[in-house]
Amino acid sequence: MALAYILGSFCTAIAAFFGMTAATRANVKTANAARKGLNQAFPVAFYGGAVMGLSIVGMALLGVSVLYYIYGPEQLDIILGFSFGASALALFAKAGGGIYTKTADISADLVGKVEIGIPEDDPRNPAVIADNVGDNVGDVAGMGADLIDSYIAGTIAAMIIGKAWADTLIESNAITNTTYVILVILPLLIKASGIIASVIGMLFVRVGKRGSPGAALNRGTFSTGIVFAVLTFLIIHFLGIGDYGLGIFFATVAGLIAGVVIGITTDFFTSIDRPPVLKTAEASKTGAAINILSGFSYGTISIVPPVLGIVVATLASWYLAARFGVDPVYGVAIGAVGMLATLGMIISADAYGPIVDNAKGIAEQSGLGEEVIEIGDKLDAAGNTAKAISKGFAIGAAALQVLALFAAYAVVVGIETVNLMDPKVIAGVFVGAMMPPLLSALLILAVGRNGFRMIQEVRRQFKEIPGLMEGKAKPDYAACVDIATKGALKELMLPCVIAIIAPLAVGFIFGTEALGGFLAGSILTGIIFALFMANSGGLWDNAKKYIEAGEFGGKGSEAHKAAVVGDTVGDPFKDTAGPSLNTMITVMALVASVFAPLIATFALVWG
Amino acid sequence: MALAYILGSFCTAIAAFFGMTAATRANVKTANAARKGLNQAFPVAFYGGAVMGLSIVGMALLGVSVLYYIYGPEQLDIILGFSFGASALALFAKAGGGIYTKTADISADLVGKVEIGIPEDDPRNPAVIADNVGDNVGDVAGMGADLIDSYIAGTIAAMIIGKAWADTLIESNAITNTTYVILVILPLLIKASGIIASVIGMLFVRVGKRGSPGAALNRGTFSTGIVFAVLTFLIIHFLGIGDYGLGIFFATVAGLIAGVVIGITTDFFTSIDRPPVLKTAEASKTGAAINILSGFSYGTISIVPPVLGIVVATLASWYLAARFGVDPVYGVAIGAVGMLATLGMIISADAYGPIVDNAKGIAEQSGLGEEVIEIGDKLDAAGNTAKAISKGFAIGAAALQVLALFAAYAVVVGIETVNLMDPKVIAGVFVGAMMPPLLSALLILAVGRNGFRMIQEVRRQFKEIPGLMEGKAKPDYAACVDIATKGALKELMLPCVIAIIAPLAVGFIFGTEALGGFLAGSILTGIIFALFMANSGGLWDNAKKYIEAGEFGGKGSEAHKAAVVGDTVGDPFKDTAGPSLNTMITVMALVASVFAPLIATFALVWG
Repeated sequence: MALAYILGSFCTAIAAFFGMTAATRANVKTANAARKGLNQAFPVAFYGGAVMGLSIVGMALLGVSVLYYIYGPEQLDIILGFSFGASALALFAKAGGGIYTKTADISADLVGKVEIGIPEDDPRNPAVIADNVGDNVGDVAGMGADLIDSYIAGTIAAMIIGKAWADTLIESNAITNTTYVILVILPLLIKASGIIASVIGMLFVRVGKRGSPGAALNRGTFSTGIVFAVLTFLIIHFLGIGDYGLGIFFATVAGLIAGVVIGITTDFFTSIDRPPVLKTAEASKTGAAINILSGFSYGTISIVPPVLGIVVATLASWYLAARFGVDPVYGVAIGAVGMLATLGMIISADAYGPIVDNAKGIAEQSGLGEEVIEIGDKLDAAGNTAKAISKGFAIGAAALQVLALFAAYAVVVGIETVNLMDPKVIAGVFVGAMMPPLLSALLILAVGRNGFRMIQEVRRQFKEIPGLMEGKAKPDYAACVDIATKGALKELMLPCVIAIIAPLAVGFIFGTEALGGFLAGSILTGIIFALFMANSGGLWDNAKKYIEAGEFGGKGSEAHKAAVVGDTVGDPFKDTAGPSLNTMITVMALVASVFAPLIATFALVWG
Repeated sequence: MALAYILGSFCTAIAAFFGMTAATRANVKTANAARKGLNQAFPVAFYGGAVMGLSIVGMALLGVSVLYYIYGPEQLDIILGFSFGASALALFAKAGGGIYTKTADISADLVGKVEIGIPEDDPRNPAVIADNVGDNVGDVAGMGADLIDSYIAGTIAAMIIGKAWADTLIESNAITNTTYVILVILPLLIKASGIIASVIGMLFVRVGKRGSPGAALNRGTFSTGIVFAVLTFLIIHFLGIGDYGLGIFFATVAGLIAGVVIGITTDFFTSIDRPPVLKTAEASKTGAAINILSGFSYGTISIVPPVLGIVVATLASWYLAARFGVDPVYGVAIGAVGMLATLGMIISADAYGPIVDNAKGIAEQSGLGEEVIEIGDKLDAAGNTAKAISKGFAIGAAALQVLALFAAYAVVVGIETVNLMDPKVIAGVFVGAMMPPLLSALLILAVGRNGFRMIQEVRRQFKEIPGLMEGKAKPDYAACVDIATKGALKELMLPCVIAIIAPLAVGFIFGTEALGGFLAGSILTGIIFALFMANSGGLWDNAKKYIEAGEFGGKGSEAHKAAVVGDTVGDPFKDTAGPSLNTMITVMALVASVFAPLIATFALVWG
């Protein structure tokens, strides 16, 4: 299991490395291709992102498949270790990377732009390299990591639940040995069908003569979904598992549809031309406080559609599965698998965003002319929408995966009820629910503390390095990168320790059922805080951009200053705390599942 | 039941009316008494607040007792109607009053202080009367209402649970008829003992020759607690219910102690001389955004001690009760009763705060001299601490009451498990958990919308009434009061409708167990959001005050401007949304309990 853990971390790291390398190269190439026109530039950017998308899902599925091939259905806990390793690395990339990128961002802005008065990304700023590195870490590697651990955890959760169900079926001689194996590995097959569908769907991502990049991306997403549904139906049909097949197919489709709906409704709350952003931008006219209150409120309201989506997906996959004799818990797990199966296409569309954003920046800085910049703008607008949709999707999908993981935990420890009328469960639920808000707050404070260290270093350099302001001397970039890195690692300690110790403490003191309550509580508030933080952050960001486009006084107005405050508050919300929560709850659920046998044996059971 | 509902509203309204009348009179009298010295002024202020404290608990207990006397143990649902009425009025006072007071506050400040540049509370400001009325509504009536509905709901919940347990005992002939009645009315007796203890405790509230008012208030609170414990022990002992008595006594004390611990730890997070406030004040130096992030984070972390307190109180009262053969659910309900029993003293200390605050203002405005103002300051400082403690206490106590109400609901519908592995329960928990954040956001947006209406009216008056700025013409105060009132009522509609419809929808569609999940989910996030909002708001307020006292640049500095942004964000958090949530979740739990018989009969049960 320890080796599987290392393998999991390694696979994730490799995928992130491939993706990031391809993305950084695609930046320049896209800018260059834009000189020949939109039709030339778009595929460069999109396929640059697709490297990330496909390498992530490919590595994940490969790792799980190889381990299953070696150890077979009897030792699925080995694959739990793989998942744990992937999540640990994801936690490192997202929470650590999130602290890193915001530390650098805040310090570069506060000292450079505000105190010294030099432009953004000015090479005289000692924090500029750390800031640029942070952007790439957060936008490309972080985003991929945001989904990979859910992808793996969801797969293994479905396999564990499937095996438990298949065990009962084979004991009563209801199925053959072949069907047994099919039920266990079906989550892998569905995910594989999703990868093939993604590759086929990518062929549809083409801008016509006057076509828009946004429409092209959407066409890709929708055709992937349709191809995936057809392919999955065919696979299940030819496997010949009878009625079970229909139930499993419908559960998959329920998950798929719920994912799309969640993504689209999230877009409403963060899109630059919709009421939430417009009203928040307008609220900036009356000052920073009203901007904050407006963004906070709409961000909070934005939890409603995804939460309802998760509820509907859970109920639909449960009852559709049960209708055809499939174990309903397995149905929910399969719904989660269906929701994330087309991840290859979704990450590709998402990674397209930062690539065209950077390409636009390169075009501006290297003076490639008005026309090229205009093309860059068109590409970029489509990227923002794609990013918003996949962000909502990521959180919704993560929620359903963790729900599946919660069910898998119950299977591993062999409990059938987690009764909210039991005081130990109540204790577990309360402590669990407390974790996500607590961990978010710790991460945000970490950004503040680390940023403060870096601000002092930047100030010191401007004071002590002669000729720096005049551009005659080079700043010590490495010192800032060093502070950002070491600080991020140091600050990461406490939240990570809490995320690992808390489920163990609840489990060993109050027993397995209470630990189930703990997981349920952490999933509940984890989803709510992750959604609220991601969406508030996104809408503050866009409200600022809307004002910068010339509305309500434009750049430099009082409204703009107020919107900048909102954007700065939103930054650690959406880039540090929000995206870390998904992984935090996944890690807690995996800790619970991995240690479940020990907890079941050694827990102090009292009462 | 409809009559009981009206009676409940009426009793609460009467108590609030008495309290508010006494408090407003005590303002002037305290200022006047301060001319003769601290020792003369203190008792005037404290006993002014005590009118509020004692009339609230008195009316509440009187109402419940009279209804019990008329209808007896067989029709406890009548008393549920009484509780429902009290909560409906409390919701009106807190959510409606919260919108009212913040509407007026924001408009008076933004137009008066910021746009026109006249001082605070200037009679030329058309919004000034609405603002002053709002302060009294929020601080005195709202605060009382914040606790009264918990007090009543907790009592009736304990009686329902006690009766269910007593029913099983008498069926097996384990107890006599007398013991049966005792077990049902014991919550009333414990509450009565708390009122007597409060009156005795008040006798200890005395400032010696050089004594401090803060110490006097604390002495009152602690002696009330001790007297209450002794009195309760004696009452239970003389009732002669054997071992049961010991279990019930220990559960009561567990609740009492947990309440005090929660109150004291909350104080840590909002107190002006503790790290959270100091660091937030310091963060203001780097701008509004960092101030917001710091306040948000510490406010979020502040949920940890009360949540752990609730967990410990629940477990302790459960196991202590079970240890002596008492039904453990009854034990938890009794713990909740014990926690709120000394409410008379707590509200008195709390109401003292706004009285001395206003008295200080009166002393300043009417030029009573340095010495009197200094006495006012001393009185005020003690009031702030008392207020912080009772606020934390209120939320913690409310949480335990609603937990008891949740148990009472289960008793009413006759369910013994609310299983988190059941998809209908999962759906209920998710939808329930979504409610408190959603309702908070709606209330905050309501403040913004209503404030905008009033701002336009204030601007109009300054523009259209000739001679207003010169003080020659009177503004139309009534128009502003009208906007605040009508707007608050109008904006209150949607949140209230949601709070009533949502539990009914979940209950009728998914059945009684899912509705149990709904309540559990709403309690969970309700507590978290109520605590985070109240404490963040409180600490932003004190961070601003700390800077105004001359630190980090003092009034008018950049740090101060940043702290004002935090304070403005915190205002609707702590005065509108935060305190409304307790009542919202109480109302939802009562809706569930009152409609339980209908739901059990007519729910669509599927799956």
